[in-house]
Parts: sequence; C-alpha cells; structure tokens
Amino acid sequence: MKIGFIGLGIMGSGMANNLLKSGFDMYVYNRTREKAKELESNGAKFCSTPKELAEKSDLVFIMLTDVGACKAVSEGKDGFLEALGKGKIVANFSTVHPNYSLELCSLVKERGALFLETPVLGSKIPAQKGELVILAAGDKEAFEKCTSAFEKISKKVMYLGDVPKASYVKVVNNEAFATSLTAYLEGLAFARKIGLDPEMVFNILNSGALANPYFEFKIKKVLANDFETHFSFENMKKDLGYAVSVADEFKCYCPTLAAVNEVFKKGLKKHAKEDMSAIFKVFDE
Amino acid sequence: MKIGFIGLGIMGSGMANNLLKSGFDMYVYNRTREKAKELESNGAKFCSTPKELAEKSDLVFIMLTDVGACKAVSEGKDGFLEALGKGKIVANFSTVHPNYSLELCSLVKERGALFLETPVLGSKIPAQKGELVILAAGDKEAFEKCTSAFEKISKKVMYLGDVPKASYVKVVNNEAFATSLTAYLEGLAFARKIGLDPEMVFNILNSGALANPYFEFKIKKVLANDFETHFSFENMKKDLGYAVSVADEFKCYCPTLAAVNEVFKKGLKKHAKEDMSAIFKVFDE
Amino acid sequence: MKIGFIGLGIMGSGMANNLLKSGFDMYVYNRTREKAKELESNGAKFCSTPKELAEKSDLVFIMLTDVGACKAVSEGKDGFLEALGKGKIVANFSTVHPNYSLELCSLVKERGALFLETPVLGSKIPAQKGELVILAAGDKEAFEKCTSAFEKISKKVMYLGDVPKASYVKVVNNEAFATSLTAYLEGLAFARKIGLDPEMVFNILNSGALANPYFEFKIKKVLANDFETHFSFENMKKDLGYAVSVADEFKCYCPTLAAVNEVFKKGLKKHAKEDMSAIFKVFDE
Amino acid sequence: MKIGFIGLGIMGSGMANNLLKSGFDMYVYNRTREKAKELESNGAKFCSTPKELAEKSDLVFIMLTDVGACKAVSEGKDGFLEALGKGKIVANFSTVHPNYSLELCSLVKERGALFLETPVLGSKIPAQKGELVILAAGDKEAFEKCTSAFEKISKKVMYLGDVPKASYVKVVNNEAFATSLTAYLEGLAFARKIGLDPEMVFNILNSGALANPYFEFKIKKVLANDFETHFSFENMKKDLGYAVSVADEFKCYCPTLAAVNEVFKKGLKKHAKEDMSAIFKVFDE
Repeated sequence: MKIGFIGLGIMGSGMANNLLKSGFDMYVYNRTREKAKELESNGAKFCSTPKELAEKSDLVFIMLTDVGACKAVSEGKDGFLEALGKGKIVANFSTVHPNYSLELCSLVKERGALFLETPVLGSKIPAQKGELVILAAGDKEAFEKCTSAFEKISKKVMYLGDVPKASYVKVVNNEAFATSLTAYLEGLAFARKIGLDPEMVFNILNSGALANPYFEFKIKKVLANDFETHFSFENMKKDLGYAVSVADEFKCYCPTLAAVNEVFKKGLKKHAKEDMSAIFKVFDE
Repeated sequence: MKIGFIGLGIMGSGMANNLLKSGFDMYVYNRTREKAKELESNGAKFCSTPKELAEKSDLVFIMLTDVGACKAVSEGKDGFLEALGKGKIVANFSTVHPNYSLELCSLVKERGALFLETPVLGSKIPAQKGELVILAAGDKEAFEKCTSAFEKISKKVMYLGDVPKASYVKVVNNEAFATSLTAYLEGLAFARKIGLDPEMVFNILNSGALANPYFEFKIKKVLANDFETHFSFENMKKDLGYAVSVADEFKCYCPTLAAVNEVFKKGLKKHAKEDMSAIFKVFDE
Repeated sequence: MKIGFIGLGIMGSGMANNLLKSGFDMYVYNRTREKAKELESNGAKFCSTPKELAEKSDLVFIMLTDVGACKAVSEGKDGFLEALGKGKIVANFSTVHPNYSLELCSLVKERGALFLETPVLGSKIPAQKGELVILAAGDKEAFEKCTSAFEKISKKVMYLGDVPKASYVKVVNNEAFATSLTAYLEGLAFARKIGLDPEMVFNILNSGALANPYFEFKIKKVLANDFETHFSFENMKKDLGYAVSVADEFKCYCPTLAAVNEVFKKGLKKHAKEDMSAIFKVFDE
Repeated sequence: MKIGFIGLGIMGSGMANNLLKSGFDMYVYNRTREKAKELESNGAKFCSTPKELAEKSDLVFIMLTDVGACKAVSEGKDGFLEALGKGKIVANFSTVHPNYSLELCSLVKERGALFLETPVLGSKIPAQKGELVILAAGDKEAFEKCTSAFEKISKKVMYLGDVPKASYVKVVNNEAFATSLTAYLEGLAFARKIGLDPEMVFNILNSGALANPYFEFKIKKVLANDFETHFSFENMKKDLGYAVSVADEFKCYCPTLAAVNEVFKKGLKKHAKEDMSAIFKVFDE
C-alpha cells in the first residue's frame, strides 16, 4: 500500500518516519522541501505538488496546522482533490474546525474517494515514538483499510462513528487539557505574587490526588523557565477558538473556556511560537 | 496532653475520633451536642462552652466551616479566648480567610497563648483514616509540641513559616482543585450538548496524561449522577471567595478564577449542600 | 423602479410599508404569506418564490433574521440568485456574519448583479417611522441607485466602503449596546440583591452623566417587568456570537464581550423570544 | 459652624475651597501641608494632626482615597477619634468599603458623636464647581445639621437611610459607570483591530440612542490620546474591588463585573495614575 504524507512539521515528520520505517512506500509533500530531507535520504519520494502525491498514493495522509493549510493543499489545480477518485482514501490527522472537516469530507466523497478524519492525541514525543492515540470518524471501510498503517504510528485507535465526531472529541479533549492546565498555572502565578514559592506549592499539589503526568511534565518545565515548544501557544489558541465556535453554534454555556480563550488572545502576539504553557507568563508578567 | 476539640462535622468528627483512639484525653465541643454522642460514648468529655473546653485542655483544636463559626466559638463571654493564657496552644484546622487567621493569631497571642494555623488537605475519607496532610504556620515551639497529636490524624505535616502562609497555600490549593475540575466538567457538559457520550469522552481523557485520582473519583460519581457530599458546594464557594479576595488584595490577574467563582455563585442557591462537583449541573441544566 | 422585498418580520414589514407608501412598485415575499396580508391589501404583489420576486424587481431588498434565512431565500432552484443578472441590485439589510456577507457578495457579483450590505441601526419603532440609520458598503454605483429608496426608510444613510465594512460596524455597534446595557443591568440586579430599591438606584444613575435614551427606554421597561420584544434576546445572542467570532478571527482580546456572551447563552433557552433586556432576569433569578 | 476638612486631594481641595468661600470657619488637615497652601492663604487654618482638627471643629469632613487613608487619620493617638464627643459630627465623603463604613460608624458613635457616610457622585470638575451629588446615610439629626454645608458643595443631596446604604449605592453607581464604559471601549478597541476607524464608529454610536455626556467626555479624550486623570485608574480599580467583595458577600452572580475587574488588574501596574479610561489601552496594546 502506497502512502502519501502531506505536512512534515513537528508531528508529521515523526509519523511519516514511523510509517517509512515500517516498510510502506512513502510519498511526501511539504511546503518547504527542507523538512523532507531526512525522509528522502531514507527512501521517501518527494512530490512537487499535493496533486502528484495523490496520484501516486493509495492513502493520502494529512497532518497540518490549521484549516488554511488544509485548504492550500487540497484546493486549486495543484491540490490533492484534483487527483482523487474511486479507490483512494484521505485521512486527515490535522486538528481542524469540525465544520471544515464536514466540508472536506464532502469534497472528497464527491470525487468518489473515501474520507476519514483522524485527529490524534499526543504531541511531539508520542509522535516520534509511534505512541499517539488516533480518534477516527468517517467511512468504516476506509478505517479498516487504514488499520495496518494506523497501528504503526499509534498505541491506540478508536473508531467513533460519523464525521465530525472525532473532531468534536478532539476539540473537547484539547479544551479540557488547556483550560485545566491554565487554571492550575493561574493558581501558581497567584501563589508567587502573594509571596509563596511556586515550586513548594507545586510539590504540595503534586503529592495529592490531582497529580498527573501532564501537569507534572508541563509545570516542571514552567518552573525551570523552559518554554521550548511541544505544543505551540498559537496552536492551542487555534483549538480553543474551535471550541468557542462549536460551543456558540450549540449554544453551550462555557464561561471558563471563554475566559481562558481571552487570556490566550492576550498573550498571543508575544508568545505565539512558545509552548502553550507560556500562558503562565501572561499571568505572571 | 489534654486536647480540646471544637467542631464535630464531617471532618472534625473523624479527626477527633482518631485522636481519642490514640489515647489522648479528649474534651469536645459542638454547637449541637448530637454530633458528639459517639465520641462521648467512647470516653470524650463534652463541654458546655468553648471557654470551659479551653480551661480544661492544653491544646485547643478547631475544625469549623468558616470565619463566622470561628468567631462564634472564640469571642464573647463563652468563647475560648476568655480561658487562654500562658501554656495553652490553639491550632485552627479550619480553612478561613488568611486575614482572619492573622486576626485570630493576634487575639490568641495577646492572651499569652501560642497559635498555629493548620489547614488540612483531604476531605471526609482521609479525615476518617487519619491520612490528612497538615499545612502548619505560626509559633515553631507550638508546632513541635503538637507534633505527636498531628501525627495521629495525618500522613504528612509541613511547617511553612509565619501565619498566614499555610492559609495562603490552602487557598491556592483549593483554587487549583476547584478551577481545574470545573474547567474539565465544563468540557464534559459541552461534550454532552454536542451529542457525544460524556462517559466515552471521559474514558478517552482518562486514558491520557491528564488522568489523576481526583478527577477520576469526582467524575465517575458525576457520570453516575451521584452528588453525595464529600466536599460541599457551599464550602468550595467559600474557599473560592477567599481566593478572589486575596487575589484582589494583591492585585493578581486571575480571570479563570473569577469566571469559575461566578459559576459557583450562579449555582449556589440550588446546590449549596451537594458535593462541589454539582457544578457540572450548572453547565448542564 | 420596482422593489422586491424579502422578509416581513418586525423590521421588514415596517420598511416595506414605508416604501409602498412612497409610491414604489412593491413585490414582496415571506415564508408565511400571512404576514404579507396588509401590504397586499395596499397594493404590493406577493411572489410565490424569491426567484420570481427577483425576476420582477430591479432592486432586491432583504431583511431576515440570520444567515440561515438568507441562504434559504438565495440558494436552490427557487432562490433569488437564479434570477439575477446585469442591471439588478441586491441590498441585504439583515445583520449577518461579515464573512457570510462577503460570500453573498461574491455569489451576487458572479451573476453580473451588484451588491450592497446595508445593515440598519434602530429597531421596531424607527423601522415603522422610517427613521432607521442605514450603514452601507459595497458597489458605489448600486449605492447611488438605491439612494431614493433608502431615503424613504431612514433618517440617515452612511456609505462606508467595501463589504464587509458595514457589517463590521454593525457588529461593533450591537456589541456596544448589548454589553454596556448588560453591564448596567447586572449592576441593578446586584443592587436589588443587597437590599437597595433598583428604581431608586436607576433614578440616581439616570440623573447623572450616563443618562441616555437607550438605557432609559430599556430599564424603565425592565423595572415595570415589561419584556415585550423590541429586539429579541435570541437575535442579540446571534449578534454577540458574530462579534465573538470576528474577535477570534482577528485575535482581539475581548473579555467583557466573552463574559456577556456566556450570560446570554445561559439565559437563551428560557428567554429566547423575549426582549434582550430579559438578560436582567438571568442575573436576578 | 466650624468645619474641619481632612484630605485635600483632587476632590477635597475643590470641596474645602467652596466651603471656605461660603464663609465657614475652616480647619484643614492633609498628610502633606503643601496642598493646603492655597486654602491657608485664603484663611483656612492648618492643623498639625487630625485630632487637633477634631478638637477645633463641630463638623469633621473627610475626603480620602481609601480605607487605609481613613484609618490613618482616625486611629492612633493623633487620630480624630481621640477628640470626638457629644455634639461633634463626622461626615465621610470618601468612597470606602461599605463594611468599613459600618466599622467607622460604630467607632464614632461609641464616642458619643454622630456619623454620616456621604459618598459623592462627580469627579474633579463638579467638585470645583460645587456641583456634586451627595449620597447620605446615617444619623438623621446629623444630616439636618450638615445641610447648610452640604448645599455649598453640591447640586443635590439625597438621604438614603442607615449606614451603609449610601456606600452601597455608591459602589453600584461606580460599577455601572466603569463596566459600561469598559464594555464600550472594548468595542472601540476591537473596531480598530478589525480595520475600522474608531472615531467613525464612535460618531455613529454617539449619534444614536446610547449617546450620553459621560461616554462622550471620556471617549473624545481617549480618541485624542488624552489620559489626564479625572478619576484615576487605581481608584476605579479600588471601587470595582469593593463591588466584587460586596457581590461575593451577598452571593450575587456578577460575571461582567468580575471580567472587568480582571482587566483593571491586568492594567494596574502600567496605568495606575492615569485616568480610568486608560482601560482602553489594556485592550489596544
């Protein structure tokens, strides 16, 4: 089975690499060829357009940062939609607005191909280790055909039903991670301002029932003033924006989400490329 | 060493019972004698006023719900302050406003006695099992004299310096627990409104890096529609109010806390006596 | 000049009526014919589809509640887009999402017709009296051709440039009205809860520099417990949602808007059809 | 009748000056004597302590910025409380926390004197012109004795009942001014970020039903980038903090107030001494 992989950023390069090592024939595309270098030297073939990639592949896998990037590779005369047809499968790992996922699903199916939305849980390190969790929704048949590939990049795959169920779960998941971590970090910044040592406070909290690997990973880095990007601030802002938008569409009362989303907006200009845990600095500065 | 214990609610009765079983001479006081019955039948002596209790005890331990309750047992002609003097130690386990803790500290020391603020981490079950965490601040000498008693009701005791450092840590701790859980539950209520099964979403989240005993304990009960009180809604509202007040005093920017505090106010009339996890219902109703 | 008017609700019926009385040949369309009765008896011709209306008219004027309603009359085989062509002008008075206005503008221009977005300021009574303010953006030529018609329904017309400038101004305008009134009503509900007479407080405030006809009109009704709809709660929620969405697109920090939007969501189920000033009841209940 | 006036800041100097010009014997006190110079040269006598001032006066008038300042002049051996007794009247024009007003009232009455809380509406210019509005609560007898003095500094005096009714009204009043203006300015900053001219937007809004002298005065200055202090940012933050505190005490749901209070905290370090309308810059920076 030939796999075309579009998007070789932090996440995509790890995933494509694991697929390549597992023996799949890999075609890759990235806006800047630079990032494909290592994969090419290990045998992946670089395609000059998403359309060419889709022509050569059975499965078109996409891992991009946002809706704009997905549109840029799918639409237009060089877009992969041009090359789709019966027998092809598109799986979009990108976290996009659920309504866009529905739209892309329609565009793919109009051309006779099958579609899956397959947002993933996990960031840089799980992507490199092939230990992501894949949330899949869409054509069941396509899902089954992709299983052997999905297994090479994940520790768990869940089939959730129709599009955009997986996008919805992804949106709620990221909301829960971002808002609970933000709430916690706000508390630590508050602690510092009232004269407590935030590390001491963290140690107390972290010896209690709320201790978890996510908070520990993020907060130890924050306390060490390390904001190297695992999940970027601007990406988390984007996902919070999706949550706000879906909540508004469904008229859900989400005041904590709304407040957290504003704090992210307040810090966006300054911290866009840092890790999302840089939200701590918005409270502390 | 004779211990007087004031306040025999959910927390206090568990603590007093553990002290009694450890062999201390126990004097107890509660506004309604009813709650002292079991302790009395096991050998504790009931005092008719806080003042009488303080006369008979070396250590005056207090575990009450709020500032008002602490004032009611300390002030006035029957209050324990009347009976204080050199050699007596007061330890207040109640979670109170840090500024009140400072005030009570002064009142106790003016009378020649020693003072500790000793808020605890843990709710009903750890109180019963003697597995609380005690955050202590105040007179070091008093702290050392209380150690043998504190060990009977806790798994860990931390000395944090001057009053109100322990109160501050307690306030931040409860803020972190309440705001992160609220943020998470808001996400689950949102999930339900957009057509997802909240249990499925919880299972996905709970298999990831954010999984922790606190969220698991609370959310499993929420999903089972069980809001039996371990930590009451009104008590958590009270503690959030302390956090809001201290944040305002120190001019700390705490928008998530502020938003969560408002949601608690919105639900207070209806859910005061339920578990604080009933905040889920404020989002879901 | 023949005018086709689509949408005969609270606003549209007043506007169409003023145009009819001014001597224009009027073609009207409404989902339910019932609402066209009075206009028909005064000489307007009812069309059975938006397409038929556009065939018979030079100017197609639209006044509907939201994007969905605009799509319902423009798209499909009976939609007015089918009948557009060179020489026709579409003016949309509805308050819609600015991005939708851009989309509708493209669809109209693709067919060779001209487009104006013309959201209005003012509600029921100014619509009836022909005293609206029209904010116009789009083809300058179209704007000039519509002037004589616009003058019959407004006291002021402003040309603001390209689409969606008028929509943007409308969004900001409604945000300012809704958030400032909500902030004020929250204060009055607060006053009542702390034992003050809200009427007394209003009288004091209203004798000061903040006094204005809008607050006075709304608040006197609130104090008289009159929530008859001039501008519906659900419509204002819709407009706040547009503001939240545009603010997110442009990454603007808007915490007050975000908070007010959540309060509107909290009250939406119960108060959708009442006047937007029913937000007072969300604070007071 | 001899009047002692404590506090000669922006407000107090205008008020004291109007009383002096009206022919009252004036005794004045200020922490820094500098500010009393002009009054002294016009015949007011400077007292070296608040106690001395209270000894020499029948009426003790106070106009200070906050609770701390009021405590500093009332308590201790030089405080005015020391010199109170039957026949003296204290009127506090300062905006203080309602609970502190109750406390000060008790302290004054314990000494046999009478007490009024008399917060004022209006800032710098009305103070200079003698056109304030006085909200009075407390001893009716004292109120009547002060009438002739109050008339010299105000255009309107209202008697509202017992302490702290006037403080409550003042808190709600300032909340309504601050939150509605903040909501409006947030909209203008938003307008600018999406490419609209804020002045154009203001002109449109200001030609509608929401137009009022307060918004006009403030916003014209904002648009001219003039943030000279009429009512300081830090003073408005203080008053919002009182509102938040009272709302929490009474368990009132006030999410807009809570959100606005956080924005003020976010900007406090940078804008403390500017006019409160500098809140615009917190949105715009």
